[in-house]
Amino acid sequence: MRRFVLIGQTASASGDFSVEDLPGSSGRLDVLLRCVRAALLVSHGLRRDVQLYLVLRGGVASPVLLRINGQSAKFLRPDERSLATLVKKTLLALPAPGDSFVEVRPGLELRSGDVPEILAEVGDARCFVLHEQGDDVRHEASINDDAWYFIGDHLGFDVVSLALLERHGCRRISVGPLSLHSDDVVSLISNELDRRFSQEKAHPAFS
Amino acid sequence: MRRFVLIGQTASASGDFSVEDLPGSSGRLDVLLRCVRAALLVSHGLRRDVQLYLVLRGGVASPVLLRINGQSAKFLRPDERSLATLVKKTLLALPAPGDSFVEVRPGLELRSGDVPEILAEVGDARCFVLHEQGDDVRHEASINDDAWYFIGDHLGFDVVSLALLERHGCRRISVGPLSLHSDDVVSLISNELDRRFSQEKAHPAFS
Repeated sequence: MRRFVLIGQTASASGDFSVEDLPGSSGRLDVLLRCVRAALLVSHGLRRDVQLYLVLRGGVASPVLLRINGQSAKFLRPDERSLATLVKKTLLALPAPGDSFVEVRPGLELRSGDVPEILAEVGDARCFVLHEQGDDVRHEASINDDAWYFIGDHLGFDVVSLALLERHGCRRISVGPLSLHSDDVVSLISNELDRRFSQEKAHPAFS
Repeated sequence: MRRFVLIGQTASASGDFSVEDLPGSSGRLDVLLRCVRAALLVSHGLRRDVQLYLVLRGGVASPVLLRINGQSAKFLRPDERSLATLVKKTLLALPAPGDSFVEVRPGLELRSGDVPEILAEVGDARCFVLHEQGDDVRHEASINDDAWYFIGDHLGFDVVSLALLERHGCRRISVGPLSLHSDDVVSLISNELDRRFSQEKAHPAFS
């Protein structure tokens, strides 16, 4: 199982935002929604072997974890407005999540929690922090499709989260020479993993 | 100058769509808008050395070419709704574009035209068609940052356009083993070019 964790420093945990003005009303949840598309959707299909965690730290209901399971998710569409509507309905349906995941809609689960709760799930599995000062992912032999990939939002990582992740043993890796949007980072990691591990090879150039 | 051309088989050329329902009302212009972000925006910045052409073939006003110049564009935001509003205003401001580009808003230009008019601009420059049966871009020595990259939408290429492009000499290249969304393809090509040609290297791993 490939797992991405997106940390939304200000992203709304309560669903009280307007889909007409996501950047202005949701604490930049739009940044995270674009990562949902990048992590879970391919052309005319859904990646069943991927889980995406959104860490929502905005508002009084925070921190909340939203987990999206490719295995069981339905009705995921690539456009931002559809994704925003789906996440809004999910958050509004369970305004005070408890300390274990509850499935609110197919494949969409909520719980209270932040990075420490995710690290408890990571356990001994491999984990990586996407970081501009990291080693090039293309030369990183240890990445695999059962690892966890932690990615910051438009504000990057806060120092406390980064320290927690590194203390847990997550290695810094990087995808290229420029600082990119979070969804581009997800696309690039996905591509690197697809190239190494995908069973659905379409062309011998990648076998 | 790095140039991406996105062919929108049904994307609205007239601006008569609703930003409340892009996938349902715009002929899937949303697919192309996500490519605008991927081609032109990086974290907290705009790529000045990129031009993006959208071929809009939907509706009675079509075919129309919308060119976005990174050099002169302003007010580009990453969220789909903002991009849709900007493109809608641009299309509505010039309902019957002529046969040469007219700048309607900063960095956004319109003309009538389709693939042949773009190929006239390509001339002797290198061009590539992103195609699942193409050679792996990572092993393609001839790509460069002054080339043209043609990418299909959710429907892929129509046979006529593909034939025109290949007759012109555009080579097929591919980004990976899976069939991806158009914006992922733009992100992956951009990353490959950044790795080879970017002057703004943030880390010695990529030098």
